[in-house]
Amino acid sequence: MTIAAANAATDLESDVRSYSRSWPTTFTHAKGSTLVDDDGREYTDFFAGAGTLNYGHNHPELKKVVIDHFLEDRIVHGLDMFTDVRRQFLETFNELILEPRDLDYKVAFPGPGGANAVEAALKLARKVTGRESVVNFTNAFHGMTLGALSVTGNSLKRGGAGIPLVHATPMPFDDYFGQVVPDFMYLERLLTDGGSGLNKPAAVIVETVQGEGGINAARAEWLRGLSELCTKHDILLIIDDIQMGCGRTGGFFSFEEAGIKPDMITLSKSISGYGMPLALTLLKPELDIWEPGEHNGTFRGFGPAFASGTKAFELFWSDDELEKSTIAKGAYIEGRFNQIAARHADQHELIVKGRGLARGLQLPTGELAGKVTSRAFEEGLLVETSGPSDEVVKLLPALTIPDDQLSNGLDIIESAVDEALSA
Amino acid sequence: MTIAAANAATDLESDVRSYSRSWPTTFTHAKGSTLVDDDGREYTDFFAGAGTLNYGHNHPELKKVVIDHFLEDRIVHGLDMFTDVRRQFLETFNELILEPRDLDYKVAFPGPGGANAVEAALKLARKVTGRESVVNFTNAFHGMTLGALSVTGNSLKRGGAGIPLVHATPMPFDDYFGQVVPDFMYLERLLTDGGSGLNKPAAVIVETVQGEGGINAARAEWLRGLSELCTKHDILLIIDDIQMGCGRTGGFFSFEEAGIKPDMITLSKSISGYGMPLALTLLKPELDIWEPGEHNGTFRGFGPAFASGTKAFELFWSDDELEKSTIAKGAYIEGRFNQIAARHADQHELIVKGRGLARGLQLPTGELAGKVTSRAFEEGLLVETSGPSDEVVKLLPALTIPDDQLSNGLDIIESAVDEALSA
Amino acid sequence: MTIAAANAATDLESDVRSYSRSWPTTFTHAKGSTLVDDDGREYTDFFAGAGTLNYGHNHPELKKVVIDHFLEDRIVHGLDMFTDVRRQFLETFNELILEPRDLDYKVAFPGPGGANAVEAALKLARKVTGRESVVNFTNAFHGMTLGALSVTGNSLKRGGAGIPLVHATPMPFDDYFGQVVPDFMYLERLLTDGGSGLNKPAAVIVETVQGEGGINAARAEWLRGLSELCTKHDILLIIDDIQMGCGRTGGFFSFEEAGIKPDMITLSKSISGYGMPLALTLLKPELDIWEPGEHNGTFRGFGPAFASGTKAFELFWSDDELEKSTIAKGAYIEGRFNQIAARHADQHELIVKGRGLARGLQLPTGELAGKVTSRAFEEGLLVETSGPSDEVVKLLPALTIPDDQLSNGLDIIESAVDEALSA
Amino acid sequence: MTIAAANAATDLESDVRSYSRSWPTTFTHAKGSTLVDDDGREYTDFFAGAGTLNYGHNHPELKKVVIDHFLEDRIVHGLDMFTDVRRQFLETFNELILEPRDLDYKVAFPGPGGANAVEAALKLARKVTGRESVVNFTNAFHGMTLGALSVTGNSLKRGGAGIPLVHATPMPFDDYFGQVVPDFMYLERLLTDGGSGLNKPAAVIVETVQGEGGINAARAEWLRGLSELCTKHDILLIIDDIQMGCGRTGGFFSFEEAGIKPDMITLSKSISGYGMPLALTLLKPELDIWEPGEHNGTFRGFGPAFASGTKAFELFWSDDELEKSTIAKGAYIEGRFNQIAARHADQHELIVKGRGLARGLQLPTGELAGKVTSRAFEEGLLVETSGPSDEVVKLLPALTIPDDQLSNGLDIIESAVDEALSA
Repeated sequence: MTIAAANAATDLESDVRSYSRSWPTTFTHAKGSTLVDDDGREYTDFFAGAGTLNYGHNHPELKKVVIDHFLEDRIVHGLDMFTDVRRQFLETFNELILEPRDLDYKVAFPGPGGANAVEAALKLARKVTGRESVVNFTNAFHGMTLGALSVTGNSLKRGGAGIPLVHATPMPFDDYFGQVVPDFMYLERLLTDGGSGLNKPAAVIVETVQGEGGINAARAEWLRGLSELCTKHDILLIIDDIQMGCGRTGGFFSFEEAGIKPDMITLSKSISGYGMPLALTLLKPELDIWEPGEHNGTFRGFGPAFASGTKAFELFWSDDELEKSTIAKGAYIEGRFNQIAARHADQHELIVKGRGLARGLQLPTGELAGKVTSRAFEEGLLVETSGPSDEVVKLLPALTIPDDQLSNGLDIIESAVDEALSA
Repeated sequence: MTIAAANAATDLESDVRSYSRSWPTTFTHAKGSTLVDDDGREYTDFFAGAGTLNYGHNHPELKKVVIDHFLEDRIVHGLDMFTDVRRQFLETFNELILEPRDLDYKVAFPGPGGANAVEAALKLARKVTGRESVVNFTNAFHGMTLGALSVTGNSLKRGGAGIPLVHATPMPFDDYFGQVVPDFMYLERLLTDGGSGLNKPAAVIVETVQGEGGINAARAEWLRGLSELCTKHDILLIIDDIQMGCGRTGGFFSFEEAGIKPDMITLSKSISGYGMPLALTLLKPELDIWEPGEHNGTFRGFGPAFASGTKAFELFWSDDELEKSTIAKGAYIEGRFNQIAARHADQHELIVKGRGLARGLQLPTGELAGKVTSRAFEEGLLVETSGPSDEVVKLLPALTIPDDQLSNGLDIIESAVDEALSA
Repeated sequence: MTIAAANAATDLESDVRSYSRSWPTTFTHAKGSTLVDDDGREYTDFFAGAGTLNYGHNHPELKKVVIDHFLEDRIVHGLDMFTDVRRQFLETFNELILEPRDLDYKVAFPGPGGANAVEAALKLARKVTGRESVVNFTNAFHGMTLGALSVTGNSLKRGGAGIPLVHATPMPFDDYFGQVVPDFMYLERLLTDGGSGLNKPAAVIVETVQGEGGINAARAEWLRGLSELCTKHDILLIIDDIQMGCGRTGGFFSFEEAGIKPDMITLSKSISGYGMPLALTLLKPELDIWEPGEHNGTFRGFGPAFASGTKAFELFWSDDELEKSTIAKGAYIEGRFNQIAARHADQHELIVKGRGLARGLQLPTGELAGKVTSRAFEEGLLVETSGPSDEVVKLLPALTIPDDQLSNGLDIIESAVDEALSA
Repeated sequence: MTIAAANAATDLESDVRSYSRSWPTTFTHAKGSTLVDDDGREYTDFFAGAGTLNYGHNHPELKKVVIDHFLEDRIVHGLDMFTDVRRQFLETFNELILEPRDLDYKVAFPGPGGANAVEAALKLARKVTGRESVVNFTNAFHGMTLGALSVTGNSLKRGGAGIPLVHATPMPFDDYFGQVVPDFMYLERLLTDGGSGLNKPAAVIVETVQGEGGINAARAEWLRGLSELCTKHDILLIIDDIQMGCGRTGGFFSFEEAGIKPDMITLSKSISGYGMPLALTLLKPELDIWEPGEHNGTFRGFGPAFASGTKAFELFWSDDELEKSTIAKGAYIEGRFNQIAARHADQHELIVKGRGLARGLQLPTGELAGKVTSRAFEEGLLVETSGPSDEVVKLLPALTIPDDQLSNGLDIIESAVDEALSA
């Protein structure tokens, strides 16, 4: 796109747009871990649609079922009518995902996006418990609609609400104070002290790895402790697995490693496998006290997304190959990051973060991290920052990224870090 | 699907599902205004995905651009990165929709569904004005996320929030009291009386025709009065055109007939033209005070929806043929409904409601209306009810429905009404 | 006080003070309906401590019991310990006030002032019903603490909260629209329409005559209609009789004339009979589900106030003389106001308002009403304004005011009105 | 009072009453630290009206000015009109309390009780900062009206609100975790982390010694740290000195020892010196941005309380004798408590708490503490419990209590503790 054309389109759009500021070009095509812009330039994708494209762009076998769905005039938009693709999706999800993990959940389709899944979970938790308050964690991100935003940490985003966000109390995420304090010391004390002033919460909502919050990975024992605390105090545990589920950290669910069984789970982003809008709220069967239609949404039955999602379960979750590969690739990134950090250790503290293929390299400042991602873009690599000061270079490559493309991308980051720190 | 299979799938899904209760069969294919179930039975669609399929199911020319988009590996999931399809969508929307109507709005992509568009509009209205309160209307429906739900009227849905819904004050919609009281008598008095106890609102949010609320069509002069009242009191006017926009009432925007220019407009449902998740929040340029990323959402850049939406603008909004046809078809339904009502007038009061192709026939009770739609389903017609007691048989056929299919469907309704009222 | 001394003291006090701006002198003594300032100047009191001094300043027989209480070292501050004066107060209240009126209420002592009584009533109504919302009325005044303020209409006072005031929906008070609309048309419709968007209220709170709101007197049939509506919809009716109770409108309770029995009643102001802080919340016995100490307050057992209150019941409520006298004096004021209004009718619309000894003369503007009260002050009469624009000259003389003092005060007002309107 | 009479009176009163359950007798007279019941039995008072009677019951010199006030027909009820007693109160407060401590505050009279003072402070803090959120502390108690209750910790009392209490976030009070964590570690981190999810607070509200919370005394350095933190982050510091001010901990203000200057201070309880309802909100002059009447209240100008308060300043705060005596008596109690604790140390952990004449002895359980206070009542000593489980025997004797009466009362407690622990 010419700059003039870009400007023209930009004039039509609200200034709220953000990614197009970091990556000022017009993308047209994509395949696997490569995007192409309108000048034909190729970019390696370490971003994967913010975790929406765990199986890469336009995976050929998924593409086939999607195109067939359209070609055959199957149901595209079905709300919550019964459709064959909806049934197949549910059955395959149950057979390949839930049953092998000994998990028993009912599935609600809360609307097309992750925020819908979070809103539905919070509503149901409140209805089930008769309580209003929710405990969330520092640097959490759960979405931008009012209910989801109230449990999100970022102050810019919170400020956008225009009303006081209430009913949520932030607690320290794992390692928020280093190893200074025992896990849950504050939360447990507040829950057991009848004079603490904490409204007893309906639910705790947590990400196992905080993506937007800076790739903060909770330890398995911390998650287990949280789960036990919730059980003990009769509080529902909601795992928001929108960004970290669907294999991002290795297993299909990011909490598998911890061996816990949350009361509710939110899924979206990569659940369709193809970047198509779909979201699920999983709930333990005994929590399913909703009246018909008590929560709904227009785009909660998008046929092509059911079709591609079903196929993705079959392709990637019939065995443990993807899980092993994800862990291996994650370990490779960690190793590379450790080298980079070690090399600069005498001058700068770089912190290596993450789990599976959610990885972060924390720079001393957000400005430096921004320099790294800008330089990476110039070198043909799409990678974003996250964290409260945007100080973490955040890697969410497709789980299917080829080894050499991963390696080459890391080379670009390494050079960019060296350059930024030597300036 | 066998009943056993249906049951199996049902066991996997939350009881919150609703449409599948009214229409207990499994749909597999659809084209135009016809759906097919897994027994090969055909159904005429007077529902159109709750207004999402204004151009019918799987329109062939739209299908072509969608399939091409996938075939060519174009960008499917782009967040708010610049993509060629995004630009074309914006430019075509501007050229074919906004400019010919002398409208000047910036477009925000607030997320994939209508609730996202409403949430974004409410957030921005509060940010711009520094006020929290919003005026909504009796029997309004704006969505199920917390912000949207707070301006929605239905008590079952509100109860699902699990927290008190605050910051909204319901005002009587047009004709709520028949012709007993002057328009806006109460709202205007509350606004001008410094002791009224009404928190001065940031915005008024309104549907021009309340679909879920029972096909209540506001008169053009009522809408103009509302717009003038908002201007006079420095309150932002948000038209929620999610269900009634995209030609449902004739013109592209449902408020065109009233000649008003709202401060913000929400669009979704039929905006992609193909049942694909997409939503827009339109805002007057001077309101665009958002910081980059202050509102966002994962699925706010769904490429195939941009492609089909662009094509839909070209196909249906390059001239006024669709508008004329919609008005003609709407008049035809009105005529048929008037005949039905007249025939029963000595025994039962049937109320004929609506505008364009949003039409309702209000039965004396919700039970009777339910009998009509159940009977219609048996006869192969999908039509739902709405209104606070589900007492309105609600017709939202595709704008493109062939005359004979429309006529045949109305025959089914007529018989079903006769049967229900004679019981 | 010299002006210098006044200024010195003023410098020590917050600018939030208000009455001292209208009446810029320093008062030192008072007796009956006469106050004296530090220059020895006398003022007739048509204000009675905003309705706190229904029996006048320093009534000699009440004074005797108060002084004896102090002299004998009886309990001054007793929280909710049993004390003899507390028991005597309760027994006398029951014997002389409740039983003769066939009323059965339990008494809670919610704290020293009216706002405490309102807060306690709202809390209990919410606890009993499990609902949060409350219906209040346009131009209501119930107090300045957060709960009471949320059901108060005045926008300046509401704005002082610094947070959005929620959980209350204002409905039109009696005659808010003249005779245009049937009573409760809007409220009843909202309550019966499941799609209205009104959160079902725990309670309705209402003043029978709105004092701060401009001496708006509800008709008895309106109050009866409200009571019936509440019963029908299982909503608690709270009468705030803080300013209008204790004989202000004739009977001890201002709602007696309407023949209703509210679920809760708040009393304060004149309940001690001597201007001493005391407040009661009366509740039907079946509503008394409080846990011990669930509501409390330091100054809820002020012995001298119990003593004077008990004596006031005996002095003024053992027969119906005061009631008759109040009604007669009220009628006299009404007659004088009607004459004034009639005399100016061709030039200005003066509206005569009120009931019993709560009387108002509404001037065309707040500015004119302010001129009247300023001029009255110069002539030695204390009278305030109320209403949303301070447009009502508000008379709350002591019920015990001698006829000639009342008459002379009205002469001053009459002259002041004439002067203001002729300017 | 006979039991029958007691029952009769009890039937008239709401079950919300509490102190009369612990002390089931009817009190009639009181002088100094001695109360008398209707059987003529005497009780030593270690309760002092929950801190309202710092100078004892019915102090003879204060009594004289109160009786004179009534005898001379001075203004009893003056709202915020200028009166001579109001002026004298302000001038004496300034001269004897503020100036000698180099404190510069404006005085607002927010209503008759402590909750009014807290409500006014919170409202003003929000108005000044434009923020809604407030930080409070675990086991705080600030009052029972909605605003004050929202910053109070006790769950029973919070539950009484009937609506979700929002806008406050509880932080750990001093020593809440023993010495495990650095002071303000969590609060400071939340304030500096833009992703913490804490709404930036308008104010921090804190008691220097938590009376209701269990006689938890903050260290001076903790208070200084809190003050510095507030300054650094531009948050207003409100010291609630309602129970601990007026000399309870030694100096007139309980924060003097810490050397801090809060932005606002609330005073009530002992401010009149005689158990009469009065409350003050002190504010730094630059915060005085209220509009006239933006906060008010009927009983904000109670003449006799001004008179006795003025006299109390003169009697007790013209020199430092009372302060020294309070500290000495407090040390005496501490010594006695330490002996008791030491004697039981091998079997039970008794914790000695407090500062000045706010002293607590924490028993292992609330049940044991209740046994102690019940036994004490039988022996003629009034002493209450506090703390989240009522596990702290709480001593708030009058500052003026004679040494031998103090000593005798402690003997009773010592025996009661021995008896309770040996059972």
